Amino acid sequence: MSLAALREQVYRANLGLVEAGLVTLAFGNASGVDRDSGTFVIKPSGVAYDRLSPDDLVVVSIADGSVVEGALRPSSDTPTHAVHYRRFESIGGVVHTHSAFASAWAQAHRSIPVLGTTHADHFGGSVPVTRAMSRAEIDGDYELETGYLIAETVELGGLEPLDVPAVLVASHGPFTWGRDAGDAVTNAVALEAVAAMAHRTLALTPDSGPIDSGLFRRHFDRKHGPAAYYGQAGEPEVR
Amino acid sequence: MSLAALREQVYRANLGLVEAGLVTLAFGNASGVDRDSGTFVIKPSGVAYDRLSPDDLVVVSIADGSVVEGALRPSSDTPTHAVHYRRFESIGGVVHTHSAFASAWAQAHRSIPVLGTTHADHFGGSVPVTRAMSRAEIDGDYELETGYLIAETVELGGLEPLDVPAVLVASHGPFTWGRDAGDAVTNAVALEAVAAMAHRTLALTPDSGPIDSGLFRRHFDRKHGPAAYYGQAGEPEVR
Amino acid sequence: MSLAALREQVYRANLGLVEAGLVTLAFGNASGVDRDSGTFVIKPSGVAYDRLSPDDLVVVSIADGSVVEGALRPSSDTPTHAVHYRRFESIGGVVHTHSAFASAWAQAHRSIPVLGTTHADHFGGSVPVTRAMSRAEIDGDYELETGYLIAETVELGGLEPLDVPAVLVASHGPFTWGRDAGDAVTNAVALEAVAAMAHRTLALTPDSGPIDSGLFRRHFDRKHGPAAYYGQAGEPEVR
Amino acid sequence: MSLAALREQVYRANLGLVEAGLVTLAFGNASGVDRDSGTFVIKPSGVAYDRLSPDDLVVVSIADGSVVEGALRPSSDTPTHAVHYRRFESIGGVVHTHSAFASAWAQAHRSIPVLGTTHADHFGGSVPVTRAMSRAEIDGDYELETGYLIAETVELGGLEPLDVPAVLVASHGPFTWGRDAGDAVTNAVALEAVAAMAHRTLALTPDSGPIDSGLFRRHFDRKHGPAAYYGQAGEPEVR
Repeated sequence: MSLAALREQVYRANLGLVEAGLVTLAFGNASGVDRDSGTFVIKPSGVAYDRLSPDDLVVVSIADGSVVEGALRPSSDTPTHAVHYRRFESIGGVVHTHSAFASAWAQAHRSIPVLGTTHADHFGGSVPVTRAMSRAEIDGDYELETGYLIAETVELGGLEPLDVPAVLVASHGPFTWGRDAGDAVTNAVALEAVAAMAHRTLALTPDSGPIDSGLFRRHFDRKHGPAAYYGQAGEPEVR
Repeated sequence: MSLAALREQVYRANLGLVEAGLVTLAFGNASGVDRDSGTFVIKPSGVAYDRLSPDDLVVVSIADGSVVEGALRPSSDTPTHAVHYRRFESIGGVVHTHSAFASAWAQAHRSIPVLGTTHADHFGGSVPVTRAMSRAEIDGDYELETGYLIAETVELGGLEPLDVPAVLVASHGPFTWGRDAGDAVTNAVALEAVAAMAHRTLALTPDSGPIDSGLFRRHFDRKHGPAAYYGQAGEPEVR
Repeated sequence: MSLAALREQVYRANLGLVEAGLVTLAFGNASGVDRDSGTFVIKPSGVAYDRLSPDDLVVVSIADGSVVEGALRPSSDTPTHAVHYRRFESIGGVVHTHSAFASAWAQAHRSIPVLGTTHADHFGGSVPVTRAMSRAEIDGDYELETGYLIAETVELGGLEPLDVPAVLVASHGPFTWGRDAGDAVTNAVALEAVAAMAHRTLALTPDSGPIDSGLFRRHFDRKHGPAAYYGQAGEPEVR
Repeated sequence: MSLAALREQVYRANLGLVEAGLVTLAFGNASGVDRDSGTFVIKPSGVAYDRLSPDDLVVVSIADGSVVEGALRPSSDTPTHAVHYRRFESIGGVVHTHSAFASAWAQAHRSIPVLGTTHADHFGGSVPVTRAMSRAEIDGDYELETGYLIAETVELGGLEPLDVPAVLVASHGPFTWGRDAGDAVTNAVALEAVAAMAHRTLALTPDSGPIDSGLFRRHFDRKHGPAAYYGQAGEPEVR
């Protein structure tokens, strides 16, 4: 993919966050990677979505998050995105939002359990919440440490990163990822829907537990397993 | 009705789900039947709503859900729809969604009691939740078994399927049906409104019980009974 | 006001309910009165809002709700509206909705207490819920009895009907009224906002009590009292 | 800035409240100050937003809230705004809304604790709720006393007014402020998002406490501190 095409894709992904209602003010950002050149494209910091153009996006190095091309300062969350690309080799896009319900779960320091098939259709297990950050992490290279914490949380789960493409950073909000920037947006949308549904389920039945593991596996596999039969053959799976 | 007209009707029904806010991503599908030819028309699997055209819809057999006409793979829920048409002879359309509040009730394994006249105007009794599926059902022909479970749940209730045109599949979400695909959409919209209202009622008065049976009957019958006086004479009833 | 102008006003009031998000499907209706001719104009029964035109509205008699002019059957709630016009001489418009939060309070059989100044700005006291209807009332002339029940509830409160222009019919939903049809819509919008705010207040502080009576009086009077100083002099008050 | 430019800015700020979904009916108003002339521009009282034009705005004196220019009566909350400008010398704009979730916190007489980084990104501490007003304050010059109460609450907190640019007036709703009218709107939007998120967090974990003070400081300072690194250099900070 050309850099121009990647810029366009990441630009559309950022606008997609707004269209999906996941963004208030300028919270949130999306990025997409070009593994060949070792760079990724990300939203500039603090620029309003309605004034954003593809040319405003910033090209930065995966290795250290430094600016490779672009006049604007990249998102302050750039080091966090960079860690995603370094540690999760299978991914092509990263999204961070402060979406309403997913952030409420993050603020409550609670993982989202698999309470139904909507969850199982998109996420191969609970969406985990991180541990609280230590004072040393907060006072150190904070955004970098946030990335390490997400990677640690995914690795603790023992799953391939694309199997559960989301983490809730405690006291903060969700990061999601995907095969590309658009897929990461799709996962952010699915996460918010699942977070709202789980919130409302617990209001009705506070002690709801995870669904049957066979039902969970059935739904996840019919979309994501080796014998997936959801979507159109030959097309990328629709998460 | 010609096949072209049925395609158009089912196409509009699928878009109607989106316009009513019942759809996130590509969750959800609507179908409509042609009893004469023994077929029904259904949304293809995993195709985004904004790229859908009437010609993308797939014509499948009521008898076994096999494709009769169409280049795309039908919705993975096709066998479930087929069971509806085989077991509920009075219906002409089926809708499945993961709408926010109805799915929360399904995830909470709770039937929606008749807490007010909005419910009684549309549904002739509680909207039942199914029992949990057995491991054998899940591991077997899952979508077919889902259909059987819905039929079992309706039959347990002892009502004509159009009297309570909705079931919540436990841990999953709602299926609704109607005289045609558009009517099934109307019932999906009504169900979501009723589910949200009941959710908020219980937050105020957790031990709310069903409304007086006479009030219930009055509201249901003024729309759906033999002496119905709601809507315009000679027009199909508006649920 | 000419009949054509009244039709237009009531038509706009009905559309205003949709624009304000108070209507799902065809629930809800608005009417407006012409005291000189002893008639009022009301929405036809079960007609979708997007197919409604001013000419579809039905002119009925205040005295008995019979049709004076119009080809369509009037709303099934017509007898209830008629009682409003007969018993509340100061009013010019009536609205009935099944709006989400106000109906939840009605279903919970709870009056909405004055928990803040938004309430006091619009309603001169708690918004009362009716008692449950008796079986005789339900089995009798139901819509007429609903009107009598609303009138009874207002009269029990001892207030002029325009002071608290709303009642919650238990197990059903809200009726509001006003100086004309548009004002009744305004009160339906205010009621829904107040109902949602009170619902969320109780979730935070379940034992919240009514606000200080002096604060209540101050807010109500600055909009509605003899020395009102809200809005523009010489204009009708904005509720 | 010319008076015409200020009118335009305040006009856009008022419309911005509507676009952000913070306004129901005619609740809410925004103002902006011109320190040189000792005046500020504010919305007229009770005028519907869709009929508002920049010329309808009223120019009033900071010193006593009296009208300097304009044919319409200014917002009834004008004396409250005036106190803001007199007591908070660093601010340039004030907004008052009855937004849904922030008002629920105000009605519940609860300050909004810092439960996550979204809060810390915008507000340098809890958003305080005022004490209840005394009967003497209510019966006296009510809107002026509301302003004094807000100032008292901010001063009790010991912070510079722009550090926590919001107060919840108990039993009433939020006032926010900022460097100019647009910034005050931004803070009203952020407050509503934070209020909703905190409401939903407490529903999941009722005893949630404030986030780690180091994390709080890190987020607030990266946007607002002397070494802020969020947004574009040389641009006004984006709250």
